[in-house]
Amino acid sequence: MSADAILSERDIAFVLHELLDAEGLTRYARFAEHGRETFDGALATAQRIATEQFAPHNRKADLNEPRLVDGRVEIIPEVKPALESFAEAGFFAAHADFERGGMQLPWTVAQACYAWFQAANIGTFAYGFLTVAASNLLNAFATETQKARYMQPMLEGRFFGTMALSEPQAGSSLGDIRTVAEPDGEGGYRLKGGKMWISGGDHPLSENIVHLMLARLRDAPPGVKGLSLFIVPKYRLDAAGGPGPENGVALAGLNHKMGYRGTTNTVLDIGGDGPCHGELLGEPGQGLAYMFHMMNEARTIVGMSSAMLAYAGYRHALGYARERRQGRPVGAKDPAAPPARLIEHADVRRMLLMQKAIAEGGLALSLYAARLVDVKDADPDAEARREAHLVLEILTPIVKAYLSDRALEANDAAIQCLGGYGYTRDFPVEQYWRDNRLNPIHEGTNGIQAIDLAGRKVAMEEGGALHALAARIDATARAASAWESLAPWGRALGDALARLEGTAARLVEIGRGEGAPVQLANANAFMEMAGHLTLAWMHLKAALVAADALKVGAEGAEADFYRGKLHACRYVFTVDLPKTERLAALCESADRTALDMAEDWF
Amino acid sequence: MSADAILSERDIAFVLHELLDAEGLTRYARFAEHGRETFDGALATAQRIATEQFAPHNRKADLNEPRLVDGRVEIIPEVKPALESFAEAGFFAAHADFERGGMQLPWTVAQACYAWFQAANIGTFAYGFLTVAASNLLNAFATETQKARYMQPMLEGRFFGTMALSEPQAGSSLGDIRTVAEPDGEGGYRLKGGKMWISGGDHPLSENIVHLMLARLRDAPPGVKGLSLFIVPKYRLDAAGGPGPENGVALAGLNHKMGYRGTTNTVLDIGGDGPCHGELLGEPGQGLAYMFHMMNEARTIVGMSSAMLAYAGYRHALGYARERRQGRPVGAKDPAAPPARLIEHADVRRMLLMQKAIAEGGLALSLYAARLVDVKDADPDAEARREAHLVLEILTPIVKAYLSDRALEANDAAIQCLGGYGYTRDFPVEQYWRDNRLNPIHEGTNGIQAIDLAGRKVAMEEGGALHALAARIDATARAASAWESLAPWGRALGDALARLEGTAARLVEIGRGEGAPVQLANANAFMEMAGHLTLAWMHLKAALVAADALKVGAEGAEADFYRGKLHACRYVFTVDLPKTERLAALCESADRTALDMAEDWF
Repeated sequence: MSADAILSERDIAFVLHELLDAEGLTRYARFAEHGRETFDGALATAQRIATEQFAPHNRKADLNEPRLVDGRVEIIPEVKPALESFAEAGFFAAHADFERGGMQLPWTVAQACYAWFQAANIGTFAYGFLTVAASNLLNAFATETQKARYMQPMLEGRFFGTMALSEPQAGSSLGDIRTVAEPDGEGGYRLKGGKMWISGGDHPLSENIVHLMLARLRDAPPGVKGLSLFIVPKYRLDAAGGPGPENGVALAGLNHKMGYRGTTNTVLDIGGDGPCHGELLGEPGQGLAYMFHMMNEARTIVGMSSAMLAYAGYRHALGYARERRQGRPVGAKDPAAPPARLIEHADVRRMLLMQKAIAEGGLALSLYAARLVDVKDADPDAEARREAHLVLEILTPIVKAYLSDRALEANDAAIQCLGGYGYTRDFPVEQYWRDNRLNPIHEGTNGIQAIDLAGRKVAMEEGGALHALAARIDATARAASAWESLAPWGRALGDALARLEGTAARLVEIGRGEGAPVQLANANAFMEMAGHLTLAWMHLKAALVAADALKVGAEGAEADFYRGKLHACRYVFTVDLPKTERLAALCESADRTALDMAEDWF
Repeated sequence: MSADAILSERDIAFVLHELLDAEGLTRYARFAEHGRETFDGALATAQRIATEQFAPHNRKADLNEPRLVDGRVEIIPEVKPALESFAEAGFFAAHADFERGGMQLPWTVAQACYAWFQAANIGTFAYGFLTVAASNLLNAFATETQKARYMQPMLEGRFFGTMALSEPQAGSSLGDIRTVAEPDGEGGYRLKGGKMWISGGDHPLSENIVHLMLARLRDAPPGVKGLSLFIVPKYRLDAAGGPGPENGVALAGLNHKMGYRGTTNTVLDIGGDGPCHGELLGEPGQGLAYMFHMMNEARTIVGMSSAMLAYAGYRHALGYARERRQGRPVGAKDPAAPPARLIEHADVRRMLLMQKAIAEGGLALSLYAARLVDVKDADPDAEARREAHLVLEILTPIVKAYLSDRALEANDAAIQCLGGYGYTRDFPVEQYWRDNRLNPIHEGTNGIQAIDLAGRKVAMEEGGALHALAARIDATARAASAWESLAPWGRALGDALARLEGTAARLVEIGRGEGAPVQLANANAFMEMAGHLTLAWMHLKAALVAADALKVGAEGAEADFYRGKLHACRYVFTVDLPKTERLAALCESADRTALDMAEDWF
């Protein structure tokens, strides 16, 4: 598969360098040894491994999901060498410190590298993503000894990681977790319970699997306050730190999903078959807080993964529409004339443009969020760190929920572009759609993201996060006013921003007056509204860069590229942003339609 | 599986008897021997066979798709007896004349019966649907001899039918069909070519398969005008009318789809292996016109199938949300309290209400369209027939495209209600979603439906079809004004109708001014607008019935049922209908966004 088929190298360079000034991050001490060359080198490696070793088995992994054979998981043979190449190239440690053998890349650049793997094969990449997220969590909260024992092998790709949160009765509701932990008298803990939906919870791909597991100490209070986080390896470590005896984490079953079929999804029996030892991570009762460190990161990555599946689908549909001849455009009635290519039909072009707007806007927004991580973590200026943190807080649920919803819409359009062929398993678009359907569910359903946005993030720090975001959006709207061609979009963005701020204020008022249930019954509409605004903002930022490039004389394919950016922006401002008016009216009416529906009326 | 789990008996009775006065059809001579008892008897039989013989193997057929073994198709053993029961109960001939052994039921009632099969197992029902549609076409255009030889065995369920239109290079573009037919010197024809995407094109389920095949006579003009329709059986008939020797329709392969996996979808080699004989149906060059007789019917049935998959998903999600406990509603913070049932969460209720609005509104709209068929075919009054024909013409693309788009949205929400469980193959909702994805594609893509609506139907008979539809919608809006509680919705419906008529007129003007390409580049938005209006209209019609029933004293579960109808109406008027404002503005601006996108800018 050609690299071009799944993702645009040119667009990644555009977002990183022209839109987000990734090189500017080398001003920070942490990234001072980097430069555009090292960034582009890492990207080229990611592109090569993704296209040569991940993409080719994407369909095969879907058709041959992991199987339980004699109590062990069997996975198609292509997965392990692909992840070994990922490890050898250093991608498990892309963001990690030099002193730990990492590449110490900005998070922004690491994410741009991961974009290739997400577009190529989300099922195989998931093992990498889970391990990187787990190692980041250990880096933040583990002791030095724990880092040496568990994190270091993860950075080297020898141990893989998981997030072992959910239980059969506790998916969205983590406060209901029942797995218990008791001191084992040797400074550690014994855990007992059951876990459900654990991605990568068992497999033969690594020397060991390190579960970061939420459990409850015997005397802990009920609810989320009673949760602590434990490091629970599949194999207990021997004296040399290698995998020793099995540790009572038994595979009780595999879940059979409709997508992400290459990634094992497991039911785990904890301490049922034999003692299950774990180490406490950090302080007791802080489990959820620690886990949210990982979870927030995971949420932005879910948004990015969604957008990359949209991207891969878009690129495939585009290639197909350029080749496939079918019908004649309106007005060309000669039946003896050769058929037109699909892309010549206006409605196909509409569907492609919609996909382009979502995929490219989604890439830009995801990497924008990643850059906030770099600023928040590495900027020497405390105020800059604080501001970036606030913007990231409010953008996280939007990136996760809005992008996963819209990306599914894009994949749906990709199928439609291919017609009956798109519906078959001979073409990749139906798999992208199935894979992508997980993204509105995992790492907190989109309903929960909407409540997080409308109920918490909008009000946090007395509206500070919203103000910080608004200031950035306002700056883009103002910048556009300097361009005759972009000024109308600048005004539209400013109007939509004022609308969002008004609606946010009204929602807080509704929460105090009509009550939180009414406020949150409107959370979904508010999320959609905030998402449209955010996507339009990203496109206008891109349009500003494009207008500038055209003004200074971009030519040929480069000029086409920038005109495409301007046109995607036009699409979003014409079709999507106007939806915010109706959504604002709905929220501001304190709509009670869902609340007032009695159960017996269904 | 309980019947209640896939469809509501009460709701079907509501639509048939309270909303559509199905009994009123017995005033027509053709249906004079029927009455509510025979209608309800047929429905009860359909419900029983669907739940006992179709639903139980729905998942199994999905997991075990038809396989090619030694050149023959193998299908799981449950399918054949289910279709035999369907035949024995007379459902292949539900609408056919008494004198042919049919039940001579109104089309409306036949469709209501089919609703059960669609909700239970769309993949197995497809064989029945294709055969009924093919037999209807033969009934309209075949000679008496052809009817006796081919149609009669189809009514008995001994022969099955197909629509053999598409070819690898000719899917949406039937004018590019290349299969040719030449006189065989014995009054028949020999056909040669290849067909693609033929559903039910081969299987071991019936004694014979009757392909209604589009082909081109050697001297025919290019394009659709050169197409003729042929009756091409898999086995040539022997003297007694039974299946004789094979007829050169060779199975060249099976297409592997993402859904509808129980229905074979075939590549057929016509006359390549041996001579393929066919009989001309009707006049040469009329193939497409005849096929459209079947196609229009098929399109409303696709809309109905979509809605029934939405219905089945809705019922499953509803049952799940009533049982499954997860989290606590906003405001109930005691973590030691037992978790709430999902249905207590406002956002879950929102998703259920949305599904209810689409599923129940879709059922009502589909059966409304079916009733137009009965009036158009059987009403003694020519003006009534003409008016019904016009309304059906304009509703057909809306029923097909709008319902299939919205039904997919409903199935998506069903998955979301179930969370991670919804994403697994242990629950049926993901299959409904995959099955349903075909509906926006087959029998004319939704893009083609939009062009049909905005380019042809709106202008047909000088706007006569639109006027006829508008008069009916207006009558509902006026009726609502008599009720204090419904008057606001009546006004909103009237306003939206005026908006639609204005936009339609503007589109015709755009077609004359800016040109057809601009007009049709806005067809998709116009379709969405027309769909929202139509769905709101159906819900207001139902609300009028419900308000009346409550006024005259409905109590208990009956009162709850009617309040549910009123509340679904409120949902549609609050959330969906307001979208028509923005869509109207978009169309009326003669939006050129898609048209102006140059290919090189992608």
